[in-house]
Amino acid sequence: MSALNEMQFLLRDVFQLEDSWQASERFADYTAELGDAILSEADKFAREALAPINRSGDEEGCRLEADGVHTPTGFVEAWAAFSAGGWPSMAGDPAWGGQGMPKALSVMADELFYSANSSFMLYSTLSVGAALCIDAHGSEQLKETYLPALYEGRWAGVMDLTEPHAGSDLGLLRTKAQDLGNGEYAIEGNKMFITGGDQDMTENVIHLVLARLEGAPAGYRGISLFLVPKFHVNADGSLGDKNAVTVGSIEHKMGINASATCVVNFDGAKGYLVGEANRGLQAMFTMMNYERLSIGVQGLASGVASYDAAMNYAAERKQGSVGGELAAINRHADVKRMLLTMRVLADAGRALAVYAAHCLDSSKSEDSTEMAQRAALLTPVVKAFLTDQGFESCVIGQQVFGGHGYVREWGQEQWVRDARIAQIYEGTNGIQAQDLVKRKVCVDDARALKAMLNDFLKTTPDEPFTLAAQQFVALSEEMVAILAEHPGREGAISVDYLHALGYLSYYHFLLRMVAAAQGDDLSERQRRLAFFEMRIFPRFNALLTSIKAGLTVDL
Amino acid sequence: MSALNEMQFLLRDVFQLEDSWQASERFADYTAELGDAILSEADKFAREALAPINRSGDEEGCRLEADGVHTPTGFVEAWAAFSAGGWPSMAGDPAWGGQGMPKALSVMADELFYSANSSFMLYSTLSVGAALCIDAHGSEQLKETYLPALYEGRWAGVMDLTEPHAGSDLGLLRTKAQDLGNGEYAIEGNKMFITGGDQDMTENVIHLVLARLEGAPAGYRGISLFLVPKFHVNADGSLGDKNAVTVGSIEHKMGINASATCVVNFDGAKGYLVGEANRGLQAMFTMMNYERLSIGVQGLASGVASYDAAMNYAAERKQGSVGGELAAINRHADVKRMLLTMRVLADAGRALAVYAAHCLDSSKSEDSTEMAQRAALLTPVVKAFLTDQGFESCVIGQQVFGGHGYVREWGQEQWVRDARIAQIYEGTNGIQAQDLVKRKVCVDDARALKAMLNDFLKTTPDEPFTLAAQQFVALSEEMVAILAEHPGREGAISVDYLHALGYLSYYHFLLRMVAAAQGDDLSERQRRLAFFEMRIFPRFNALLTSIKAGLTVDL
Repeated sequence: MSALNEMQFLLRDVFQLEDSWQASERFADYTAELGDAILSEADKFAREALAPINRSGDEEGCRLEADGVHTPTGFVEAWAAFSAGGWPSMAGDPAWGGQGMPKALSVMADELFYSANSSFMLYSTLSVGAALCIDAHGSEQLKETYLPALYEGRWAGVMDLTEPHAGSDLGLLRTKAQDLGNGEYAIEGNKMFITGGDQDMTENVIHLVLARLEGAPAGYRGISLFLVPKFHVNADGSLGDKNAVTVGSIEHKMGINASATCVVNFDGAKGYLVGEANRGLQAMFTMMNYERLSIGVQGLASGVASYDAAMNYAAERKQGSVGGELAAINRHADVKRMLLTMRVLADAGRALAVYAAHCLDSSKSEDSTEMAQRAALLTPVVKAFLTDQGFESCVIGQQVFGGHGYVREWGQEQWVRDARIAQIYEGTNGIQAQDLVKRKVCVDDARALKAMLNDFLKTTPDEPFTLAAQQFVALSEEMVAILAEHPGREGAISVDYLHALGYLSYYHFLLRMVAAAQGDDLSERQRRLAFFEMRIFPRFNALLTSIKAGLTVDL
Repeated sequence: MSALNEMQFLLRDVFQLEDSWQASERFADYTAELGDAILSEADKFAREALAPINRSGDEEGCRLEADGVHTPTGFVEAWAAFSAGGWPSMAGDPAWGGQGMPKALSVMADELFYSANSSFMLYSTLSVGAALCIDAHGSEQLKETYLPALYEGRWAGVMDLTEPHAGSDLGLLRTKAQDLGNGEYAIEGNKMFITGGDQDMTENVIHLVLARLEGAPAGYRGISLFLVPKFHVNADGSLGDKNAVTVGSIEHKMGINASATCVVNFDGAKGYLVGEANRGLQAMFTMMNYERLSIGVQGLASGVASYDAAMNYAAERKQGSVGGELAAINRHADVKRMLLTMRVLADAGRALAVYAAHCLDSSKSEDSTEMAQRAALLTPVVKAFLTDQGFESCVIGQQVFGGHGYVREWGQEQWVRDARIAQIYEGTNGIQAQDLVKRKVCVDDARALKAMLNDFLKTTPDEPFTLAAQQFVALSEEMVAILAEHPGREGAISVDYLHALGYLSYYHFLLRMVAAAQGDDLSERQRRLAFFEMRIFPRFNALLTSIKAGLTVDL
């Protein structure tokens, strides 16, 4: 598919983003035309600069030497070009040199970059998130010192959360921060699984570190956030000595081999408090909600890359006969089924991601609590459902290649390996599902959910969709009531619940895309919608049955 | 789980295999006690000799040097011990030194070996299949010359089918065989994806090669099977010169890195016809049906290995609180759900594999056409469903580990990479599904299917199962009628159809295991059955809906 055409269709015809942007002060500089131009440039850069170093980066991987982490051949040059193109500043605050781009637009650029080179794009996603967090919670001095260099891509930001004994449960973390009394803190502890924890592409690496101040309460309420630079920064912005931050090792992983996953040791490293003491997790979540959308898009993008390759392969590879003659395998029904499955998952997933990002944008530009709640509701769905479906798409795309899908040479298996991590990091998909059920649906008796589904029903009032949405609302109400009585049960059904909401949302967006389409494009979209209704959406009812049964017992 | 206990339960309580064995001439030497002893030995060997070289074999991989393929450190010694233990002769013909073991028993040994080291076990599976094919179709001279050495493990057999342009469609293959007039043939051509195409563990490698005789008809009807040894064999059984068989390269793959996947070139290599001219595919299928059961078991075994590791990890890893205190993650409902899912898929998958193998055994020992048809019906289901579900289990088992599941050090991601190939080779799962629909169900108007389901209903007449089986029969009859009118549609629904039959069979076997259980074991099995009914089996209805819809249109 041309992802670019799909994006332009969403931007202009499905969501008419320009209208919202122009109506707001925040995004008034953005037009559909500018959006198209940005995405075209992103597509060009992705194809020309990032895709060519994707497989070589996987084969070569990162290596740790005495002077730190070295990225694979070509990454240093690609990052320089990426920075020169202004891509690290897309989402940045204009007050400090950022472009203030709507997230609805930048997630689409994210997709183009991720579908060319997931490992490379991770360095950017983490850095953008760190900058966002500093912008939202840091002092003016921290912003002035760090944001311009982060936006320019001269420095990169990372987040340091996980410790060996504290992964999904950050309340267990032990890294300590000692107040040195001069606005500085000494950080002591060991972090692991730090994506981009070091690299040789930027002059400095800015760590956002979760740690405990002396005397802080135990658990989640005693965690603060600190900014810890790899190199100290002098008053004039130049770099000083190296801080006491070292990389102990890098992980050897299933995939994303060109993304350095580091053990980072802080040995009395000097750092600065970001936001309020003991409110570090809240500050970190500002960044994580944005990043979770981007990680959902990583899953989507992997599936799209796999789909494009599978489409090309299936058009070329001839096996078996159709109508008595040797035929390309894309003429065989089972291959058509696989390609159509990948296609509808990609189309609908992209629409959901853009919609969620647009809700986030609207919550800012309109200062809308309702849109903020909706974005919060959809964030775990985008993160988990798009990565689960993206992984499924990558597996299907590998199957289309047959044996060639299993050998490294063709690159198709790399998408499977690279996409797999997106279901795990940034909060496992199980954690996302519990976040959805507990903190996004049960918390307000499903009000935000019902408001969203009402909006969906207004836009796409088709009968089978209406029935499905009503069933889902009824189930949600039942679930809220049962979980109030049996709070231990949410874990047993939350993944199924998130998937059910995912399929329901996909159905809505596919209907909405049909409603916005015209001509030949309309008939193609109707065909794909019919395939989804007949062949994919039956899973929704199976999930509803499973959830209902799961709510009746303790596992 | 203790796979060994599960196997003994199946052997003694569920299928009472001893009764069948003792009633037959062919397997009269086998008792339940002997079965237990063999499985205990296999388990011990798997743990002590194969598991320790599983991850190192993955890291090191195979390498091609001037003298051929070198397997990773420890494989040569492991193969020697495997041979000394008599394992390559399990299924072999007693007339030539084999043990004539029932397949129902040897598939369980296969599982134990596969769940310790899939790459290693592949060398054995291919060799056993080749020996079976020689035994069934070769001349007395070929049997005398080759079978004893294959059973002793001094030599290993492999199958050479795929060519670059001929994978799923073997009718396209081009390798040529020239009749030299003295009972010898000169083989000329290039094969690829040859599992175990060369190695340094055995003195000789015996290739079974599909090729075309001069003047043979085009397509499937002009393919013959030839035995082509790597080293010529002298009249006294000693090895002569090297034959014109060379390995051009080995593939770099997603997984099974310790299994050499070779490009094999035949440059006028001398070979011998196996079976009748132009009947090579039929001869090869003798072997493939046995191998497909074993490859299904590879999928199962990968899931079992991943499950065992996940169980251990979840019991040790503490994150989050249950009842106000820090708890091992196996106390969290979402993790329980994941572990239970893996467990029921493993329990039921093993039972299905053993049942299918027992049908194959009965078809021989009782000379029963009905059992032969049933084994043929179940072969694609075992191959495809167990590998699909096995892969799903490996992915779930990786998820239980969180971030640690993604790093190579823990070994959990290797099962995902290794299991993935089983859905592709030995006929992709899409090909298996079409085989099921066309050649196993439609071919006799679903008679063999209905006979099997009738037997299932007699054994487990529970109400919801009966309803589901009746629905499946009705759907199958409808499908047969529609496909008679619209023969192009089977590809669109065959994968869903195979999965539906898979879930239905799993349901039957879980019921059957509950019926055979006692005491504490009974209540545990009832709990797992209830989980399956509530949380997994709803997928069956979704598949039925999808199949019905899929039959109404051409994709």
